[in-house]
Amino acid sequence: MATSPIWASRPRTRGLVLDLIRAARTISRVELATATGLTGATISEVVRELMGDGLVVEAGRGASTGGKPRTLVQLNRLARYSVGVQLERNICVIVVVDLAGRPVARTSFQGVAAMPPEQALPRVAAQVDALLATAAVDRDKVLGVGLVSYGPQDRRAGVLLTPQPTDQWLRHPVAGRLAETLGLPVLLDNDAAAAAIGEYWMGAVDPGSTYGCIYMATGIGGGVVVAGEVYRGSSSNSVEIGHISIDVNGDQCPCGNIGCLENYAGPAALVRQAIATPGLAQRLALDPASADFLTEFARIAAAANAGDPAARSLVEQSARYIGCAAVTMASLFDVDRIVLAGTSFAVAGSIYQTVIQQEVDRRTFIKRAHPVRVVPSVNGSDAAAIGGAVLVLQSELTPAHSRPDDGVPPAPAGTGEAP
Amino acid sequence: MATSPIWASRPRTRGLVLDLIRAARTISRVELATATGLTGATISEVVRELMGDGLVVEAGRGASTGGKPRTLVQLNRLARYSVGVQLERNICVIVVVDLAGRPVARTSFQGVAAMPPEQALPRVAAQVDALLATAAVDRDKVLGVGLVSYGPQDRRAGVLLTPQPTDQWLRHPVAGRLAETLGLPVLLDNDAAAAAIGEYWMGAVDPGSTYGCIYMATGIGGGVVVAGEVYRGSSSNSVEIGHISIDVNGDQCPCGNIGCLENYAGPAALVRQAIATPGLAQRLALDPASADFLTEFARIAAAANAGDPAARSLVEQSARYIGCAAVTMASLFDVDRIVLAGTSFAVAGSIYQTVIQQEVDRRTFIKRAHPVRVVPSVNGSDAAAIGGAVLVLQSELTPAHSRPDDGVPPAPAGTGEAP
Repeated sequence: MATSPIWASRPRTRGLVLDLIRAARTISRVELATATGLTGATISEVVRELMGDGLVVEAGRGASTGGKPRTLVQLNRLARYSVGVQLERNICVIVVVDLAGRPVARTSFQGVAAMPPEQALPRVAAQVDALLATAAVDRDKVLGVGLVSYGPQDRRAGVLLTPQPTDQWLRHPVAGRLAETLGLPVLLDNDAAAAAIGEYWMGAVDPGSTYGCIYMATGIGGGVVVAGEVYRGSSSNSVEIGHISIDVNGDQCPCGNIGCLENYAGPAALVRQAIATPGLAQRLALDPASADFLTEFARIAAAANAGDPAARSLVEQSARYIGCAAVTMASLFDVDRIVLAGTSFAVAGSIYQTVIQQEVDRRTFIKRAHPVRVVPSVNGSDAAAIGGAVLVLQSELTPAHSRPDDGVPPAPAGTGEAP
Repeated sequence: MATSPIWASRPRTRGLVLDLIRAARTISRVELATATGLTGATISEVVRELMGDGLVVEAGRGASTGGKPRTLVQLNRLARYSVGVQLERNICVIVVVDLAGRPVARTSFQGVAAMPPEQALPRVAAQVDALLATAAVDRDKVLGVGLVSYGPQDRRAGVLLTPQPTDQWLRHPVAGRLAETLGLPVLLDNDAAAAAIGEYWMGAVDPGSTYGCIYMATGIGGGVVVAGEVYRGSSSNSVEIGHISIDVNGDQCPCGNIGCLENYAGPAALVRQAIATPGLAQRLALDPASADFLTEFARIAAAANAGDPAARSLVEQSARYIGCAAVTMASLFDVDRIVLAGTSFAVAGSIYQTVIQQEVDRRTFIKRAHPVRVVPSVNGSDAAAIGGAVLVLQSELTPAHSRPDDGVPPAPAGTGEAP
């Protein structure tokens, strides 16, 4: 069964202190008191409790600033773990991360999303079990599982609100069933939001920053983080940037909207465009009948990277379309940074980064106020799965981040046992 | 000079209690304790202090729930006032509101924005003085002035970051100069954000709601409110919805972007389209040389309301364009409501509301999760000016809303005196 709750009292103070220790890597009690505004006595007591729980350890002494050198503390990285599961249309990625969010084990496999959920979820659970065993991670130290997938979702109920990849997945209790099978708490969240929060947890952004993430795998999604918290909106179905219109006179999308970004710039669109480009499909040996369009997309991206003019022109056009949506993201959310994450950016990252940065520099309304940097994710192509695991760490360890008014309980789906 | 700060200690608790009293209109101490989670003793003490400051008064007794009927308290509406000043390209609107945000006096006049700011701001100040005198509002009870205008802005410095309406306004210290002249604190903010927060303060939305506002006067702006707080982003230049692209292949906008909503759907665009429509310009006696395009726009809107097919078709097309952007707002911010505010929606409100609601119902990605209602602003065409005044009330009275991490100090530009 899952480990018991880490604490019952003062969760906000403890969460705040633990988050500061995580962010600082090593820090003294005096610095913690300065950063939190709490008294030295309170800090000492909280740190003692965290050390008693095994979450924090001493880490030598800092440089002297005149008096006695200060004892530093740091996270006990291997004290707890969490699991991230990304369920994509074509692939499932599972990572195990330590308390600092660093991956300690990873696996991926294909085919589950094509199965009905009754068949797929036990396979996912078996793979989680196998990965924990391979990594020799003590199950009692696993805080939970962050299951991330596309939207829309009912995060509270732990169900997908879309009949994808098949009708049987619509409103199937994916989080609850996985929790039952694994005997671990499972939270469901958006893959792009997960990829976004991973940047913060890894220390890649300023703690107070408002930044966005554009996530491209089979489709295109997005997330925005404000001062370390995922922007949620009314129902945690925010930043669906793949389904905003870039052409008010454009084509109808199955989602109901017209001119959706994903249909112009996503991997499937790029493969369609390449197949329609005279000579290119033959040159790259693209298979119009292939169900695995990501492989075809990777071939086009590789040709673009290698200098094929037609392939490069298509990838640049895709990047300009995404740049248009990135400008919308910047002008609406007033972000100071846009992170590009997901496997499909990974294969042609530098072309996308360059072109999207150009579009943002040229077009965003807020350029008079501040620049917007376009950067690749520090978590590479596993950003969503790692982010899923990070969401578990954040929800379990730093409840300071859980605001009472976000309308969605931070607690993951339980395992059916009493708390 | 301005009234002194209302309190120096426990601002969050006092702000929270005052906000609950405001929202509830009348409420008992027991209900306040339940809503805040504070002890009865703390509530009694805070209410005593608020009554001592004259901000709250007793309001009779509520219905008995078995025991002794409970004494109710309510805002002392006339204990404090604030002023909202909306500076538009063509008009300046000034309102004085009471502690509940209800307007007690209003004036508007044209011509100031065409002047250099050195000339315009003293005129605005004189009008504020005259309005306070006319309304017989004691100056010591005025908390401050909320000056609202278009973006981008440097809210902290109190300057506009755009050379509009003339170059001389760019980076002119509008908030500071107005504060000096009036001897009152002045905060600068975005007009559309102000219009948005006004809805919350007037009790038109659920306190926990995430909702958006589309604001149309001479241009088109926007604001989003999350649980009673304006969504700010990195620099308080968020939700610039008039300058998001609705056509990736569209026309260049002076802002740098292409296909900006404002150039397709704003009043100036509609007047251009009407003048280019055979017969319509003659029928409505539109003046292609008029500098006052809002008057021409109002004529088109009136004709549309009266059933002129060509005028109606143009207004509906404008509404569909705005609907496209409204869908983007809904899909990115996950709002549960979109408020239409500003003078230009006021003249043809029901056509805009109907068409935008249709577009949102049909196209928004989150429709599977929840509906999004499109509604007119409760504050009518003065929504921005009233909202400016409300932002002063919120910043001075309910500091619970001012989070330390929003990157921008909630305190308005001072009057040069020591605090």
